[in-house]
Amino acid sequence: MEVELLELLKDLETLKRSLPDSSLHASIDKMRLRVDYVTNLANAAPARRSKVKDMSAEVVDTNPYSRLMALQRMGIVENYERIREFSVAIVGIGGVGSVAAEMLTRCGIGRLLLYDYDKVELANMNRLFFRPEQVGMTKTDAAVQTLSDINPDVVLESYTLNITTVQGFDTFMSSLKNKTFRPSKEGSGVDLVLSCVDNYEARMAVNQACNELNQIWMESGVSEDAVSGHIQLLVPGETACFACAPPLVVASGVDERTLKREGVCAASLPTTMGVVAGLLVQNTLKLLLQFGNVSPYLGYNSLKDYFPTMEMKPNPQCSNAACLERQKEYMLTKPVRDAAAKAKLEAAASVALEGPLHADNEWNISVVDDSDPDSIDGATSDALPEGLKRELPTADEFQNTPPAAVPTTTTVDDLEELRKQLEALNAE
Amino acid sequence: MEVELLELLKDLETLKRSLPDSSLHASIDKMRLRVDYVTNLANAAPARRSKVKDMSAEVVDTNPYSRLMALQRMGIVENYERIREFSVAIVGIGGVGSVAAEMLTRCGIGRLLLYDYDKVELANMNRLFFRPEQVGMTKTDAAVQTLSDINPDVVLESYTLNITTVQGFDTFMSSLKNKTFRPSKEGSGVDLVLSCVDNYEARMAVNQACNELNQIWMESGVSEDAVSGHIQLLVPGETACFACAPPLVVASGVDERTLKREGVCAASLPTTMGVVAGLLVQNTLKLLLQFGNVSPYLGYNSLKDYFPTMEMKPNPQCSNAACLERQKEYMLTKPVRDAAAKAKLEAAASVALEGPLHADNEWNISVVDDSDPDSIDGATSDALPEGLKRELPTADEFQNTPPAAVPTTTTVDDLEELRKQLEALNAE
Repeated sequence: MEVELLELLKDLETLKRSLPDSSLHASIDKMRLRVDYVTNLANAAPARRSKVKDMSAEVVDTNPYSRLMALQRMGIVENYERIREFSVAIVGIGGVGSVAAEMLTRCGIGRLLLYDYDKVELANMNRLFFRPEQVGMTKTDAAVQTLSDINPDVVLESYTLNITTVQGFDTFMSSLKNKTFRPSKEGSGVDLVLSCVDNYEARMAVNQACNELNQIWMESGVSEDAVSGHIQLLVPGETACFACAPPLVVASGVDERTLKREGVCAASLPTTMGVVAGLLVQNTLKLLLQFGNVSPYLGYNSLKDYFPTMEMKPNPQCSNAACLERQKEYMLTKPVRDAAAKAKLEAAASVALEGPLHADNEWNISVVDDSDPDSIDGATSDALPEGLKRELPTADEFQNTPPAAVPTTTTVDDLEELRKQLEALNAE
Repeated sequence: MEVELLELLKDLETLKRSLPDSSLHASIDKMRLRVDYVTNLANAAPARRSKVKDMSAEVVDTNPYSRLMALQRMGIVENYERIREFSVAIVGIGGVGSVAAEMLTRCGIGRLLLYDYDKVELANMNRLFFRPEQVGMTKTDAAVQTLSDINPDVVLESYTLNITTVQGFDTFMSSLKNKTFRPSKEGSGVDLVLSCVDNYEARMAVNQACNELNQIWMESGVSEDAVSGHIQLLVPGETACFACAPPLVVASGVDERTLKREGVCAASLPTTMGVVAGLLVQNTLKLLLQFGNVSPYLGYNSLKDYFPTMEMKPNPQCSNAACLERQKEYMLTKPVRDAAAKAKLEAAASVALEGPLHADNEWNISVVDDSDPDSIDGATSDALPEGLKRELPTADEFQNTPPAAVPTTTTVDDLEELRKQLEALNAE
């Protein structure tokens, strides 16, 4: 459009010069102003937010990070802004990967590496993220378009390739090794790899790369009937790798997709994929920002809202050579890890002896002995701030009720005591 | 822009007529063609998909419903297309409500009613759905813009109002009662109300409306520290209403938001809100399309990946008069419900006696007696289709291994046996 408008300006200029009658020049100048105006309108991109240098906790409507920095104030995360140092690679930008990418982008992750070879189709519209006007674009291009609009602070790298081809795998490996973003980082150039692919071959490729690079990664998957899914943490040498416990039946030597019956496709739902992406990125945040417990495995059975968990140790007979190497390294460093863990426990114990955990006590929390009725009745512990009322009576309104006769519970102190009780019971 | 371009065309026409020298007419005609071209480009709206009359299960890239209709083929849903008959009202288009609306839109829900009074801010960008270029728009307008682009088949109704004001509540009530979309529907005009609000007052307003209308609804919420949430099903008269078990401390007579400390805001995460929205809409689909079990209450503790469930009966001393009325009605209709449930059970039992559950047996499933080694070795039950191989040896390859000597486990039949064992152990 800009080219056409520029040509139009040139045409007007030419016409003006060739006109013998200068009385018409004014009308041509008016037309040139109109073209300028239209050019400006055409060039005006939709309002994008500008980059933010530092993450601020300031509570104003214009701060895109206020609700995230509040995680520090709430005592959940110690240093939220560290998120800008991290690089996360997402393999497979489909129903799970695209939503995971959007969540990390909105959280202000430092750098995202996106891998996919597929194009957006109307048949993908039953999952979140991609829009109908992106049909025909590669998923990586469409993702970069959407994500850079949402948060220009995130460094986005996109790789339109298939990691299961020889060349694709090489590029995948070298992109993971690249440390330009944070040269001081130990190990590979990324902090975490998220596998969001939909087939066995691609999972095995991610597994191979991560075992070779000694790279922590998380696997995710959704069932063909769309109603269950899972996420799994894989730490080379420490937990089972993807080849340690392979599925019972897999495709061999043929494209998995040709195995599917003609005219039959897997079902999918935006709900299941949204939940799996949410659980995946929540565990990513817990791992990177060090809060809560990272789940080694978490399933989601949506028909029953059942969430199974388990842990899997590596298989000493694993078919993957790199996995066996990582297992050996892990065993060799075990004494060092044990000593470090012991020292950390002892340090924590001595700190606990030295004084209160939170010396500043910003929230004025005080420990009250609840066996002492005076302190419960005290105004400091019981009064509510102005504007708040209790919906139920407070505890002391029940204090005049005589306590019901409850059987006395015997405290069991040791095994000897337990043995005596057992004998007494048997003697009856 | 179109106006300017139209004026430009008129200017060129005027100029052409006023030109004495017709040799310049050709160059003006060329300019007019350029303007036409630019006008066409400017008018080309971003590619939107056209409306779809019937949901098709055809497996082609251009079918936006193929992966949803596949739920029928997978045996999860009996009649997916029924989703087009349903109306769902979403109150609160924030971090949970907007994602719930997008999921239902992508699933092809018949009609969505959206309620919110707030505007989009940059501070909302840490959650999914809204985009920076929508800052300043009302959340309802921005949602309608995005959702109608994603799926033009969904009937969208948006209400920019606060349901806790007298006038807002009246409009809310009458919009729920409106049955124009499906006049034959029993009860109110909507099939489900989803509460995705962030304060007590608004929840009480939804509770009041649903108790008065005898309307099933689901409540959702996310904690102020952003790391937990819940969903809850509320069936007036049958389960606890929101007033049956109120929170212990609530705001009274003042705006809840003024209670928050100056410069402190609640934390929020796209992950927690995405998971809660996913669980909420998954349970919505299960309720409307009748598959799986709808959870009466489901919590999400993200620090531990723990998902508590519970059921709550209505409170006979509930402070809400409409709730008490619904409870009375529910008790009165109990004999009818019991009789219907009994008849259904008996009908199911008699069908089971009459013949096989699936007479057509499309997948050629046959029951094999696994105590008969011949049938296990038989080619029909064990051969894999071409292109598949087993990763582990089949069961019969282990048959020649002599069984290891394992201690015989004594089966304990009754309490008497258990007592004897205990005595024997104590005699040692």
